[in-house]
Amino acid sequence: MTGKVFLVGAGPGDPELITLKAVHALNSANVVLVDDLVNDDVLKHCTQARVVYVGKRGGCKSTPQNFINRMLISLATHGETVVRLKGGDPFLFGRGGEEMLALREAGVEVEVISGVTSGIAVPASMGVPVTHREFTHGVTMITGHTQDGAPLNWQALVAGKTTLVIYMGIKKVAEIVRELIEAGMDAQMHAIAIQHGTLETERHVIAPLAMLPMAVHQEKLASPAIIVIGDVVRLANSKHLLATLEVAA
Amino acid sequence: MTGKVFLVGAGPGDPELITLKAVHALNSANVVLVDDLVNDDVLKHCTQARVVYVGKRGGCKSTPQNFINRMLISLATHGETVVRLKGGDPFLFGRGGEEMLALREAGVEVEVISGVTSGIAVPASMGVPVTHREFTHGVTMITGHTQDGAPLNWQALVAGKTTLVIYMGIKKVAEIVRELIEAGMDAQMHAIAIQHGTLETERHVIAPLAMLPMAVHQEKLASPAIIVIGDVVRLANSKHLLATLEVAA
Repeated sequence: MTGKVFLVGAGPGDPELITLKAVHALNSANVVLVDDLVNDDVLKHCTQARVVYVGKRGGCKSTPQNFINRMLISLATHGETVVRLKGGDPFLFGRGGEEMLALREAGVEVEVISGVTSGIAVPASMGVPVTHREFTHGVTMITGHTQDGAPLNWQALVAGKTTLVIYMGIKKVAEIVRELIEAGMDAQMHAIAIQHGTLETERHVIAPLAMLPMAVHQEKLASPAIIVIGDVVRLANSKHLLATLEVAA
Repeated sequence: MTGKVFLVGAGPGDPELITLKAVHALNSANVVLVDDLVNDDVLKHCTQARVVYVGKRGGCKSTPQNFINRMLISLATHGETVVRLKGGDPFLFGRGGEEMLALREAGVEVEVISGVTSGIAVPASMGVPVTHREFTHGVTMITGHTQDGAPLNWQALVAGKTTLVIYMGIKKVAEIVRELIEAGMDAQMHAIAIQHGTLETERHVIAPLAMLPMAVHQEKLASPAIIVIGDVVRLANSKHLLATLEVAA
């Protein structure tokens, strides 16, 4: 009898921001394959599963995607109920799509259990509503690394005037900020970078856009982090010093 | 003693897609103010609360926002623990930002509990990963009604080449599609409209962009619905007839 794979989001960090559906899937799984962006506290819901770590954090050693795909297929075809647990939401920059397609192609049943995505929940935990309608018509979510394919159309991103949320952008923050300013974004636009959002270890910097790379560097912010750029950042509930900095224009 | 307000997301529809944190807040609340986009099944977690319905669905009668704000402030200042429960995520087109600001101004403690947003989870439930990197660099989320402020920059939205996710757009689908095609989007671009996503009552249509309004009209799709436009829609797990339609170009 063939098993099944659940592609499950663990949420943005706070172990309470996992869904009931994810908890039930973890509970009933025989095997759980975990990314290293997942908070270990959520693994307490695995009552009977073998837990396998297959980290892929940017820059570190990790299990190649092809190997993970083959592992998922092999486990499921041997009848296991498998949870593939990812930080945030499996379908928002989580490469869940690639795993879904590999499983579909192999004829393995797959179910997606969406999670709370960091790009909305992390700013929310700082009091920043990314689509606050006094300031914007919407939000655009992109990643900091676009290793494959055509470059981003930065001018369109700026002209769209949506709030920008950047996942996995902390290492390339200087490059991203330069692109945005060259594409016409106000160098004084409000920006925030948040590491470990929704956790007690949370750290962040707020700065005018042009100063963000320096602020990130000074405070030694590192991955995993979320960057938000837009007027909505004004609403952030922060006493951080850099909030008062201004670019000497 | 002053109470507290929790702004809580109930998730996209499926009552299992609510977070543990939301369940705990509902459990401990004295009063719960509920939108009519929230699935009644999640109210079983209110073990001791008075439940007040304050619907605001587009086009129907509803409680004015100012009145809701005053109610939240009044309840909290009288010492109540209040949950303001919203469909999806309170900070993604949920007007949670407005409520947060009103509460902050009144000196009432407020905590946001993020939820799974419909714009990601509803397409995910159809097998559509909105940021699948073979097809796009990211996703842009907008609303169909922008009654206030400047019009959207449709050309920038098209030029950005991100997947477009439109909340509350079903009534204006003809207008939205016209704007997008006039702004340069391919009339054959893949599009899907999904009503009641993640629920058993789910219904959807898939069509080339130019045909979407007709398809929505024929199938009598209505609010609440999510529209997704972009190449990622090709991955949809759907046997729907309209998937095979093609625009006579």
